Amino acid sequence: MGSLTFIGLGLHNEKGLSLVGLEKARKAEKVFIETYTNPMPHLSMENLQKLLGKPIVRLSRGDLEENAKNGILRDAKKMDVVLLVPGDPMVATTHVWLRVEALKMGIKTEVVNGVSVYSAAPSVAGLQIYKFGRSVTIPIPTENYKPQTPYDVIKENSKRGLHTLVLLDFSSEKNRWISIGEGLSYLLEIEEERKEKVVFRGRLAVGLAGLGSDKPVVKGDTVEKLLSYDFKLFPQTLIFPGRLHFMEVEALKVFAETPEEVLKLYV
Amino acid sequence: MGSLTFIGLGLHNEKGLSLVGLEKARKAEKVFIETYTNPMPHLSMENLQKLLGKPIVRLSRGDLEENAKNGILRDAKKMDVVLLVPGDPMVATTHVWLRVEALKMGIKTEVVNGVSVYSAAPSVAGLQIYKFGRSVTIPIPTENYKPQTPYDVIKENSKRGLHTLVLLDFSSEKNRWISIGEGLSYLLEIEEERKEKVVFRGRLAVGLAGLGSDKPVVKGDTVEKLLSYDFKLFPQTLIFPGRLHFMEVEALKVFAETPEEVLKLYV
Repeated sequence: MGSLTFIGLGLHNEKGLSLVGLEKARKAEKVFIETYTNPMPHLSMENLQKLLGKPIVRLSRGDLEENAKNGILRDAKKMDVVLLVPGDPMVATTHVWLRVEALKMGIKTEVVNGVSVYSAAPSVAGLQIYKFGRSVTIPIPTENYKPQTPYDVIKENSKRGLHTLVLLDFSSEKNRWISIGEGLSYLLEIEEERKEKVVFRGRLAVGLAGLGSDKPVVKGDTVEKLLSYDFKLFPQTLIFPGRLHFMEVEALKVFAETPEEVLKLYV
Repeated sequence: MGSLTFIGLGLHNEKGLSLVGLEKARKAEKVFIETYTNPMPHLSMENLQKLLGKPIVRLSRGDLEENAKNGILRDAKKMDVVLLVPGDPMVATTHVWLRVEALKMGIKTEVVNGVSVYSAAPSVAGLQIYKFGRSVTIPIPTENYKPQTPYDVIKENSKRGLHTLVLLDFSSEKNRWISIGEGLSYLLEIEEERKEKVVFRGRLAVGLAGLGSDKPVVKGDTVEKLLSYDFKLFPQTLIFPGRLHFMEVEALKVFAETPEEVLKLYV
């Protein structure tokens, strides 16, 4: 009897893995990795294979979707299989689907959670996680696809005084991430059209880059200023703070070098 | 010159620690641990000290608050100090305050994120994390203190079709956690008073216990049924789903053994 264990790699590189994840991956008969939803540019496959003491097979989107039943799931029916996934292993729908399919096939499954940007970003910015409303992702826009959901979610949260976490997508087609500057421009364009004063140039935002590395870049300032700030690392994330508690103000000053005059408006 | 590094222990026991966290804790000149906000009953101090190859000093609430400047911060001014914290190290305000103080004193700080219940719970239940609204904690009520915030937050999120993560507090005074049953009773009492049909006996909820362990208990059912379900492990957490995507329905069926007839009402 086989099994399928989803293990989160956490953030940044192979050292984001937990001890329990490492232990279970070492015991597995076959180890796969999926990096097309989030390529983890600082992950060294060589180091990871050394850590595990075995080869790791990289899967494509097709391997995890239409070909899963003839690949990873067929293996997991017979032997103990591990799938390594950046961040937390169950945040993407693909993995939820894969776990559902495995269970339907009678395969035992297990989840070893990993550090996720959803908790790491608020925490590194010093913003209280229970004051975050719904989060949202900005995609790479195309001519026919530029959803206004990110704008609507920020609007809705802001109205209620809540913070908004805005993830910036990776496009596997274009093989690149959206930068903080592009994310802000995306939102400013919608603002220009709708003029609802949701994301304007004077508004406070916090940009985060390279979470999980030794020196993540965290900068709070007006949208205007962040547009031209050099965040250097990827992936990047945005937070639009709502109403701030005094401790959050203190945190944004010293964790994110946010100018005091910008913070004054949010207390 | 000293430094203060906050390291998340993740969930369940010492194996929740990440490889980077382990590496940094091993290099530190002095290692503290704080477990009064979340006692991590399965954490073995003995194993953790063996892993780190050095003694670990346990801090009380006072050590981290009023006595911090004569203790941990004074040490961190002179040497490389690590503070180990269950879950993610910056989720509690106390640690945010401590990092602010350290930076004001000119101490270098660093944060090594840990796995947090905020991302682990949605993910283990198979619910999409970006569909969660604001989260909330149920405290242990006293005669004069029984806030209705948890009820209001669930109400607000549900109205918008969003899921709600409800944490169940640990009381260091009473040295115990709130159980899922108690959390549900807390909410049902408010329902009885307000009658707004937010948390009623037929409503779908998901209970999670022992996240981060090999066999977490995850059960979806009506509030009525969950009231008497034996979740065995602690800490425990609740989720009140909002509108469900069909993949979430599939997930709740197989990850949380949720009866189909209960799910039908949420699609």
